[in-house]
Amino acid sequence: MRVGIIGANPDRGWAMQAHIPALKSLSDDFEITALSTSRSVSAAVAGKLFGVPLAFDNHHDLVNSAAVDVVAITVKVPYHFELAADALTAGKAVYCEWPLGNGLEEAERLAALAEKKGVLAVVGLQARSAPSVAYVHDLIKQGYVGDVLSTTLIGSGMGWGPAMPQSEAYTADSKNGATMLSIPLGHTLDALCHCLGEVRELSATMAVRRTSFAIVETGEIKPMTSHDQVSVSGLLDGGAALSVHYRGGMSRGTNLLWEINGTQGDLQITSFGGHAQIFE
Amino acid sequence: MRVGIIGANPDRGWAMQAHIPALKSLSDDFEITALSTSRSVSAAVAGKLFGVPLAFDNHHDLVNSAAVDVVAITVKVPYHFELAADALTAGKAVYCEWPLGNGLEEAERLAALAEKKGVLAVVGLQARSAPSVAYVHDLIKQGYVGDVLSTTLIGSGMGWGPAMPQSEAYTADSKNGATMLSIPLGHTLDALCHCLGEVRELSATMAVRRTSFAIVETGEIKPMTSHDQVSVSGLLDGGAALSVHYRGGMSRGTNLLWEINGTQGDLQITSFGGHAQIFE
Repeated sequence: MRVGIIGANPDRGWAMQAHIPALKSLSDDFEITALSTSRSVSAAVAGKLFGVPLAFDNHHDLVNSAAVDVVAITVKVPYHFELAADALTAGKAVYCEWPLGNGLEEAERLAALAEKKGVLAVVGLQARSAPSVAYVHDLIKQGYVGDVLSTTLIGSGMGWGPAMPQSEAYTADSKNGATMLSIPLGHTLDALCHCLGEVRELSATMAVRRTSFAIVETGEIKPMTSHDQVSVSGLLDGGAALSVHYRGGMSRGTNLLWEINGTQGDLQITSFGGHAQIFE
Repeated sequence: MRVGIIGANPDRGWAMQAHIPALKSLSDDFEITALSTSRSVSAAVAGKLFGVPLAFDNHHDLVNSAAVDVVAITVKVPYHFELAADALTAGKAVYCEWPLGNGLEEAERLAALAEKKGVLAVVGLQARSAPSVAYVHDLIKQGYVGDVLSTTLIGSGMGWGPAMPQSEAYTADSKNGATMLSIPLGHTLDALCHCLGEVRELSATMAVRRTSFAIVETGEIKPMTSHDQVSVSGLLDGGAALSVHYRGGMSRGTNLLWEINGTQGDLQITSFGGHAQIFE
């Protein structure tokens, strides 16, 4: 299957860190035939660095290329809708990083478009493929803890703290849809539900406790409108009680504690930070 | 000040474990002049064991004794209302263990009666006097963590698990008002609010996940109607986010983790179980 990657920054980002190494390790099934960035210089550099034959300085040429079967979208959330819509309209299958759109409406419009065009469209909720999460899933299924009575999850957003690098500053503006709720908590709750079942009911409290943050490189103070506190209580489908608390930044205490209490046993999953998709 | 203790079981209970040693250690201010139990044999044994001059086999004689200024009520919750009401009606000051009544209405009626009689009436929310809690209170007040951004508390009820001794079986029946919510969580949230401020708003999810339990001594299976899962999300008065999860029984994982995240620092309080009034 021939993959075109939109957003193949040669210096940083998930294409370089995750998508490209993963696809290259699956060379029996996938071939990266094209990439695009927003500038011709970076496109050329990326094409050479990653060994990809077609390197475009715009996504239109990529989604319309006859050499591309599936388009991987690995850019910031605010661009997901336009890029995914163009790829789907061109009749291409799409793999888009989570969160799919900026808000529910964009996601629903993309889902409808994919259905209309009859193409495969996948959202990258990759935490459920992380070995640690897959192992928890299997242990639960095997009855390791007996019946699940409850689960508690405390996590640090890592970002959304007192300071963030310039490249992450856009996540502080809730309008961009790349929030602590949508990114680390979204991925992590998907992992939790994958292991323990979907949410039947919930109540939540959200707050912005740090209303500003500093740009790491310059010290400039910028406003924060993304919620940096999310506290959830609820029940899962099987009846287990659910408690979740995510806080912006890092804690000198708990950065990830996911505990599962069962009739026959308990599990604790810990990590250096709260992003389930990068659990170690 | 002359204290009469209702419920001075010579074999076990809080009078023996806590009230009597504490009062005896404050002999400049307090003198235990009377006690009562419900049977003349145990009253006599307790009077001799604890060195208390007047030992009654009923609480009426105690609350009406001219040798008693303040009545301490150290029995199960279902009896609090009758005993406290009788003591207040007799014009005596009252110190009653928390929870004050079986439900809000009983507590409000007792508060109104104390006000009408013009006597001092105190509820034993003693966790705030525990050295560890007092230390947290002082650290927060001194600005050790800066501004409090949020707090998370996970605790085990210790009781309300798969098995309980006969003496605690009454706590499994929610009608008795001696529940995980009212006892360990009530004491612990009082400690939390003492340190961090009162609750401004909250949502909660409660569940009974273990609908039965075994009597330790006999193995007999009894129904459980007290909630053994309480999950809370909310905000404190100062705006800090609040997340609380209490689970019945004990966990092989987290039995108490109280974390306070601030702008300048973080605190973690841990213990072997979730009852704040017996933190070590």
